Amino acid sequence: MTYVLSSSIERLKEKIRNIPNFPRQGVQFKDITPAIGEGQFFRLIMTIFISRYQKKKIDKIAAIDARGFIFAGALAHSLGVGIIPIRKKGKLPYKTYELPYKSEYGEEILTIHQDAITKGESILIIDDVLATGNTALTAALLIEKCGGNLMELGFLAELCDLKGREKLFPFPCYSILQF
Amino acid sequence: MTYVLSSSIERLKEKIRNIPNFPRQGVQFKDITPAIGEGQFFRLIMTIFISRYQKKKIDKIAAIDARGFIFAGALAHSLGVGIIPIRKKGKLPYKTYELPYKSEYGEEILTIHQDAITKGESILIIDDVLATGNTALTAALLIEKCGGNLMELGFLAELCDLKGREKLFPFPCYSILQF
Repeated sequence: MTYVLSSSIERLKEKIRNIPNFPRQGVQFKDITPAIGEGQFFRLIMTIFISRYQKKKIDKIAAIDARGFIFAGALAHSLGVGIIPIRKKGKLPYKTYELPYKSEYGEEILTIHQDAITKGESILIIDDVLATGNTALTAALLIEKCGGNLMELGFLAELCDLKGREKLFPFPCYSILQF
Repeated sequence: MTYVLSSSIERLKEKIRNIPNFPRQGVQFKDITPAIGEGQFFRLIMTIFISRYQKKKIDKIAAIDARGFIFAGALAHSLGVGIIPIRKKGKLPYKTYELPYKSEYGEEILTIHQDAITKGESILIIDDVLATGNTALTAALLIEKCGGNLMELGFLAELCDLKGREKLFPFPCYSILQF
């Protein structure tokens, strides 16, 4: 078990920068780049993720394009498991399953390689921010479509007012920081 | 020093899948997903990267969107340094420097946050595949624009016929696999 001081969590939280009206008017964007740009804070994030997941049965980590790749890459390496990219349509080169969803940028389609998961594998989804939950739910449904068992969805930050966690129910959901 | 058997490298190489005519007619795409999807191969890749860079002076790792994020995330965590995303225009929310380039998808613009680097920091750029070198060179020039010293560019795979390494000269360049 790793203990992280609440003062460390507060300092990490201060490293998430608010950007008003991005990517469009009326949206306040959580910019994680100041947090991951400093080694001590990126390491703190990963220490918390690793502490939570190192004793769980996880066969593969699914990473949501694009910022999710950063945390999922570090976590998959630390846990010694493979990583599966979930990407926007047109980016994955092999045979895919696809599902439409509404993102902050409009109507989009999320895809996963059909051979990414062996039936019954335990999968953890990782992304940076849980907002409305539309992207995360679509990713969760793609994991099920591939025959995977979704163990949990893990996020660096959760925008609680947007109630993404409710949208993801009954899938288990975890976030390091709540805003 | 970590020693990696050449037979392991050969097995890793076989995990890179050729996809003809992707993303457009006449291009043979190197699909890295089978390699990173298996824990043992992803760990082998990262062991080689870590072995090469753990004794070098690296202040931050710059990651090229999007597949580069996977390896850069794992490497930055292992080395205990921060990670800087280099992304297509419109994706980074804060003030950016930008440069146009020709990608496999056409004319694009690559951007970096203006506050990503402190002048004089030693930067390693990481991406998955070195092809023509256009994206990598643009990323290298963005690092210099921010005042960073580019220590090296590291890739999982290099498509030698496309002579990206020559385009990147005199920046030092390293690849785990050569095709």
